[in-house]
Amino acid sequence: MHDELITALRGGLPEGAVLTDPDVMAAYSHDMASFSEAGAPAAVVLATCREDVQHVMRVATALKVPVVPQGARTGLSGGANASENCIVLSLVKMDRILEIDPVDRIAVVEPGVINAVLSRAVAEHGLAYPPDPSSWEQCTIGGNIGTGAGGLCCVKYGVTAEYVLGLEVVLADGRLLSTGRRTAKGVAGYDLTRLFVGSEGTLGVVVKAVLALKPAPAPQLAMVAEFPSAAAAGDAVCAIMESGHVPSLLELMDGTTIRAVNAMAKMGLPETTEAMLLAAFDTADPAADLAAVGALCTAAGATDVVPAEDAAESELLLQARRLSLTALETLTSATMIDDVCVPRGKLGEMLDGVAKIADRFDLTIGVCAHAGDGNTHPVVCFDAHDPDESRRARESFDEIMALGLALGGTITGEHGVGLLKKDWLARELGPTGVELQRGVKAVFDPLGLLNPGKLF
Amino acid sequence: MHDELITALRGGLPEGAVLTDPDVMAAYSHDMASFSEAGAPAAVVLATCREDVQHVMRVATALKVPVVPQGARTGLSGGANASENCIVLSLVKMDRILEIDPVDRIAVVEPGVINAVLSRAVAEHGLAYPPDPSSWEQCTIGGNIGTGAGGLCCVKYGVTAEYVLGLEVVLADGRLLSTGRRTAKGVAGYDLTRLFVGSEGTLGVVVKAVLALKPAPAPQLAMVAEFPSAAAAGDAVCAIMESGHVPSLLELMDGTTIRAVNAMAKMGLPETTEAMLLAAFDTADPAADLAAVGALCTAAGATDVVPAEDAAESELLLQARRLSLTALETLTSATMIDDVCVPRGKLGEMLDGVAKIADRFDLTIGVCAHAGDGNTHPVVCFDAHDPDESRRARESFDEIMALGLALGGTITGEHGVGLLKKDWLARELGPTGVELQRGVKAVFDPLGLLNPGKLF
Repeated sequence: MHDELITALRGGLPEGAVLTDPDVMAAYSHDMASFSEAGAPAAVVLATCREDVQHVMRVATALKVPVVPQGARTGLSGGANASENCIVLSLVKMDRILEIDPVDRIAVVEPGVINAVLSRAVAEHGLAYPPDPSSWEQCTIGGNIGTGAGGLCCVKYGVTAEYVLGLEVVLADGRLLSTGRRTAKGVAGYDLTRLFVGSEGTLGVVVKAVLALKPAPAPQLAMVAEFPSAAAAGDAVCAIMESGHVPSLLELMDGTTIRAVNAMAKMGLPETTEAMLLAAFDTADPAADLAAVGALCTAAGATDVVPAEDAAESELLLQARRLSLTALETLTSATMIDDVCVPRGKLGEMLDGVAKIADRFDLTIGVCAHAGDGNTHPVVCFDAHDPDESRRARESFDEIMALGLALGGTITGEHGVGLLKKDWLARELGPTGVELQRGVKAVFDPLGLLNPGKLF
Repeated sequence: MHDELITALRGGLPEGAVLTDPDVMAAYSHDMASFSEAGAPAAVVLATCREDVQHVMRVATALKVPVVPQGARTGLSGGANASENCIVLSLVKMDRILEIDPVDRIAVVEPGVINAVLSRAVAEHGLAYPPDPSSWEQCTIGGNIGTGAGGLCCVKYGVTAEYVLGLEVVLADGRLLSTGRRTAKGVAGYDLTRLFVGSEGTLGVVVKAVLALKPAPAPQLAMVAEFPSAAAAGDAVCAIMESGHVPSLLELMDGTTIRAVNAMAKMGLPETTEAMLLAAFDTADPAADLAAVGALCTAAGATDVVPAEDAAESELLLQARRLSLTALETLTSATMIDDVCVPRGKLGEMLDGVAKIADRFDLTIGVCAHAGDGNTHPVVCFDAHDPDESRRARESFDEIMALGLALGGTITGEHGVGLLKKDWLARELGPTGVELQRGVKAVFDPLGLLNPGKLF
């Protein structure tokens, strides 16, 4: 069976496209969710074109072998982890930007294009591709589409889903499907494009995407506000959004996160504060907007409000926020990153609740958050070699999701479900929702070959 | 069978909810697409709550009777037309605004809420619900969701789909499904919410919607530019968008439309011009933006550029644009309204092509367009009592869609498919696309009871 598979794959693919060295394959077997299990692939294929992908899917269908589509493996939910004896189908070599059109404000790209590479390419045309996950220098557009990735810009510019106009997708049986459009509007039939966004490679393999672009915004000016409690920072977020402000960024770092960033990068952030809000505007008069927001922060209890002097200083502050996750990861041997998004008005309650969970389980849980969206990332830090601490970590990780659901939120704002949150997806969707989702899956992938075991 | 149906319906519905008077039912049998056929309903139900809808769907499933969900019947594709012996399920009485939350920037509404009523209600909180179809004073949010409605604002603010965060839907068998979220972000499972938007009542009956709101924009300032040809106006649109401008409105009226509006409303629009562009900005300095756009129009060949003096004059210009369709309808006994959206860069070609089609078929075809989106509405005017002219009208209507597809566009930007464009949907999607769309339909509505005969 294994030999037959390798022979069939090699029969229709370029020299060197099929990797079978166990050490090499091990590297392709998992994403960055270290806590999630991963199987050993039967083969890794580095596709270079649509036809390669079609060949892989035809072989997979003929031999009934599961396929795990993969981008840069920066995911945080195990969504790209190999299942046992699967074909790992890596799209990273399909990395051409096919078109940038400033009149139609679209880019047409292959799935392996790196997010930051696309951002820089469109910037040369005075355009922007807003979605900016923290991994933007590594992650691919295909991976962004698979997870429905977010980022720091979402509070003003929305998530990946809002920028995907049309797709070319290779189906489980190798057929090609075109969805959507390259026009600004279009409502011809069910929105299959959106169905693929966030489907984590379970419905088909994206081989081309038409993406919407925006005119490049003005440089943003940022500000930092320090708070004596996370709840006070949450109140400030509510006041800012209720007052009709449209920040280009509204981020939160708690005391644990601030101290971790300082320890790693010596950034001189204020160590004594319990929560720091980072706000930015790319409006016509960002200084005026920051002044108004600063006053709202002070009214909500901020002990200090410091606007950045210029764009360079603003960028430095963003840098601190982007380092949060990496910095928290240095604290212990392992981390689990939650991605709970709650209604903005419940942010303070959510943050307080996480602190209580950390106390109760006697664990360090640092929180950074896309506060303007109510999207929190509690990072559970633990020693993976300590079985009891690992158990407590998993339990606290789950309790954070339970709290999010109780507050009317979702278990995942932007990281996806993958393996890590399968049980919780069922809780969030309920039995009717899961039944329909499974039904949709069966329409696209009747043999269940595409990324099996993920989502549900 | 008919008596059994009526008895079963009345058995679980309030007094007066089931209408069977033939004259009354006739009024509920069709939307505003006068060219599309409509059957005679077996009953019309005016639902007042979710439970009413569930009862109707349970009866329909038990007796295998088709159900046509319906809003205000302002649709333009026959999507809400009754099929023979169906239950027309009108949602117009479910018209409560359940919640407006300025912190989370959401509204929770029943499907029968009228678009303009919601807009005015959220305006009191300093918020806006942007989607603004021309029928906004009549059309319902449920209908907007069903068709994926657009409007004049879309060039800056996008379409209905971008504002629907979560739904409660009654399924074909009467079960209740919750989709999506009330949070700013969320990627838990397949995006079923988006699947319902634009599904024209074929997948389920929306009984509640969570809608995203924006802070109310500044009042917009408008400008008119006159062009010697539609193609020149199309060039101006390309130049404006390529230069990175973000107008809140960028509309086009051709000479036929202008003269029809003048004839109806005595608005004093310039009769000798071949095409008029209407641009507006709600930015920090709209006058400066209009000046820049005016210069681009002049460079593209505009013979005259006239900025509005103030918001009141701007509103008057918008009024003229909103009257376009009604005014064109006064020219003949019948009209067919196309809704072809092309890539912005092809707008000039599209407009020229429509003029040639009008010549060839010896018909009056007035064009108004959401030019900034490439979304054209060629209105074919004809005498419905003249069989030959009716035939030519239908053929020219089809040729306009063929032209749109040839230019890389879509047959429907915002009006939906309904009955009018069924054959064309199949052409646009291709056989694989149609097969998958039918598969999705079967998952949600295995008996094929929901709005049968629409879409495909």
